[in-house]
Amino acid sequence: MRMVDIIHAKRSGKELTEEQIQYFVDGVVSGKIPDYQTSALLMAIFFKGMTTEEQSTLTMKMMESGDHLDLSSIHGVKVDKHSTGGVGDKTSIPLATVVAALGIPVPMISGRGLGHTGGTLDKLEAIPGYQVEISEQDFIKQVKKDHLAIIGATGNIAPADKKIYALRDVTDTVDSIPLIAGSIMSKKIASGTDALVIDVKTGAGAFMKTLEDSKALARALVDIGKGVGMQFMALITDMNQSLGNAIGNSLEIEESIDLLKGNGPADLEKLIVTIGGYMAVMGDKAKTTAEGQKMCEEVIHNGQALDSFEAMVRDQGGDPNVVNDPNGVLPQAKYQIQLPAKTSGVIAKIVADEVGVASMLLGGGRQKADNQLDYSVGIVLNKKIGDKVESGEPLLTIYSNREEVDDIKKLLYDNIEVADTAKVPELIYTTIE
Amino acid sequence: MRMVDIIHAKRSGKELTEEQIQYFVDGVVSGKIPDYQTSALLMAIFFKGMTTEEQSTLTMKMMESGDHLDLSSIHGVKVDKHSTGGVGDKTSIPLATVVAALGIPVPMISGRGLGHTGGTLDKLEAIPGYQVEISEQDFIKQVKKDHLAIIGATGNIAPADKKIYALRDVTDTVDSIPLIAGSIMSKKIASGTDALVIDVKTGAGAFMKTLEDSKALARALVDIGKGVGMQFMALITDMNQSLGNAIGNSLEIEESIDLLKGNGPADLEKLIVTIGGYMAVMGDKAKTTAEGQKMCEEVIHNGQALDSFEAMVRDQGGDPNVVNDPNGVLPQAKYQIQLPAKTSGVIAKIVADEVGVASMLLGGGRQKADNQLDYSVGIVLNKKIGDKVESGEPLLTIYSNREEVDDIKKLLYDNIEVADTAKVPELIYTTIE
Repeated sequence: MRMVDIIHAKRSGKELTEEQIQYFVDGVVSGKIPDYQTSALLMAIFFKGMTTEEQSTLTMKMMESGDHLDLSSIHGVKVDKHSTGGVGDKTSIPLATVVAALGIPVPMISGRGLGHTGGTLDKLEAIPGYQVEISEQDFIKQVKKDHLAIIGATGNIAPADKKIYALRDVTDTVDSIPLIAGSIMSKKIASGTDALVIDVKTGAGAFMKTLEDSKALARALVDIGKGVGMQFMALITDMNQSLGNAIGNSLEIEESIDLLKGNGPADLEKLIVTIGGYMAVMGDKAKTTAEGQKMCEEVIHNGQALDSFEAMVRDQGGDPNVVNDPNGVLPQAKYQIQLPAKTSGVIAKIVADEVGVASMLLGGGRQKADNQLDYSVGIVLNKKIGDKVESGEPLLTIYSNREEVDDIKKLLYDNIEVADTAKVPELIYTTIE
Repeated sequence: MRMVDIIHAKRSGKELTEEQIQYFVDGVVSGKIPDYQTSALLMAIFFKGMTTEEQSTLTMKMMESGDHLDLSSIHGVKVDKHSTGGVGDKTSIPLATVVAALGIPVPMISGRGLGHTGGTLDKLEAIPGYQVEISEQDFIKQVKKDHLAIIGATGNIAPADKKIYALRDVTDTVDSIPLIAGSIMSKKIASGTDALVIDVKTGAGAFMKTLEDSKALARALVDIGKGVGMQFMALITDMNQSLGNAIGNSLEIEESIDLLKGNGPADLEKLIVTIGGYMAVMGDKAKTTAEGQKMCEEVIHNGQALDSFEAMVRDQGGDPNVVNDPNGVLPQAKYQIQLPAKTSGVIAKIVADEVGVASMLLGGGRQKADNQLDYSVGIVLNKKIGDKVESGEPLLTIYSNREEVDDIKKLLYDNIEVADTAKVPELIYTTIE
């Protein structure tokens, strides 16, 4: 078999065989296939796509290229949730604690942020002491004890994906549906979960900018997940404006804690309760999603979910006082700078990705994978799409460690539109099962 | 500027700016741009194409990446011819000598064969002693003396193309019209010729399989050539069946000599006289192509072109006795094995590329760039499309240094069709000026 023939087949729109995909994945891991051939194939996949069969095969081969976590010693249906990434999307953290509070084991393996998007691990690391790198053994032990652990990938999970992802990033082949689906699912299947809900973000702040592309990605994910016998569903939710009000690592942890105290932003709570309802059914704790949603609301408002969060933080080495005194425990920015509205009207647009870029430029996100983060900085929105605003009233607050933030202000003004009327985007567009 | 943004622009179908193309070509030559990004861009160019403007810019930047041959000391209009490559396409050799015999300087810089196609330099090297690597100074001196020299690239011609071509070969991005056009024209412009005829081969044995693609390539070449003020034209000629009867290095030199003695195959002579007619006009020796063609026929049949050939061979170190005793001078294969027709009828198909592969497998061509050639082997067709054949009559003769050639026989039988009727392909489809 020759790699150039595999490239030719895909370039010509042909379906790759299992043997060809195996040859490719093996060659990537062993280094036998040079990067320039891999990137040519990735670009051909970008243009020509993959069939359901090919996507599943690619996923399985990438999964099989590394370790497979064995969670069988954990009692019950293991349930996980993954988001394709957005701005201000701290959902995973409170959601996992809510579901764990229902007694469902949530062994969550998360990632870091890049570009305008944040990452769950980065947010948790804003809590002093919190360890995301723990052994497989300790991970399983903690899930058994707390029903919950949120960690980074352990061991050698999907090394083929690791190499391919690094190449995609520098060859502009990130936003290919089969490649995104294969990357997510190879890691999730290797992580050993029984059930998975994926939140496919759509809109300006998401990788998938259109509803059509988001549906196609959700479909690809569901096909792969169900193909391996996982309980699986995908939701398509809005990422035109950021989720909740806070963007930035400390700020998002604080907002997550507020939510678990029953004082969270409405959109965030609605999303958590909705997804939590599905997870409660998957985890055999509720018969219907409506029942599951009711259970989630209860543990949010009776403090049980907050207890789950506190237990997880403590058991992963973090300072549990964060629950009672977030401002005292989490890194705080030196300056709080308000951005006043220039005119009166209704907020018509808050372009999520550019708000994410603003937070990144303050130091809260990474331009490159090896950038250090400043956990304290970020943005808290006072207004969201559809809200009325008076001229001079603050649109948002910038949390910064530098006093001069004219560049950030300009970027934000350019991406917030005040108009006479506004169309508030739906929060949840559809579910795909 | 970042290479990933250039890839993104092209991937999205945008026109690259001069600055972006300059950055790319500079980065390829300096090695600053890694191969995996280059190959991703090449694949994006394959799918998205390039505008006339982009093609010209890419060509000029690749040309400017290396040396430029100064032929101004040679008196007269320097005329060259290039073929996009085919099977049995020895045209350049007798054609160059015919045009030189008219007193027109032909400073020809040629290439080697790869895969099923042959190369002019390889064929000339079948003549013992013939040197294709001579200095720029000696090249110019010989063109002044003989009106003719056929050599390999001297010095550092279009190093960007050299790197890009090597990558295209292994990433299945060879058959992209802007990349082919840029590759050919960057070298031809650097070679310092005043006028150029390009023979764009079309059909099974050519890179361009369809007439439509061939026309698009010819158009791209003409646009670039005229854009730099060259006298320029392109012909589109048939490569469904191989040209002439001989395929293989010694065999093609022998056929070229036969032609220069007035005993060449009709299709080959017709093509040479046609192209020669255009070149005679470009070289200011004829007023009309008809007049030019008549002059070409004359020098073929009065021995003057043969004299030009003999002078070139002698002056480039080759054994001039090849003219009088080709069989005695050229390497000869040990076995001549005939392939008898299995049925009677008319030859309906001789698939050129597979016949080229057969010659390659005998040792006459290269599977990889560093393969050694066996000059003596090849195939001589007894029949061409449209010819009648009786069962048992030889279709062709295999020239081999191994006695057992069942694999070659099978390949050839599979690619020669004897039927009740045949459609003889046209030799010359069209010209584009």
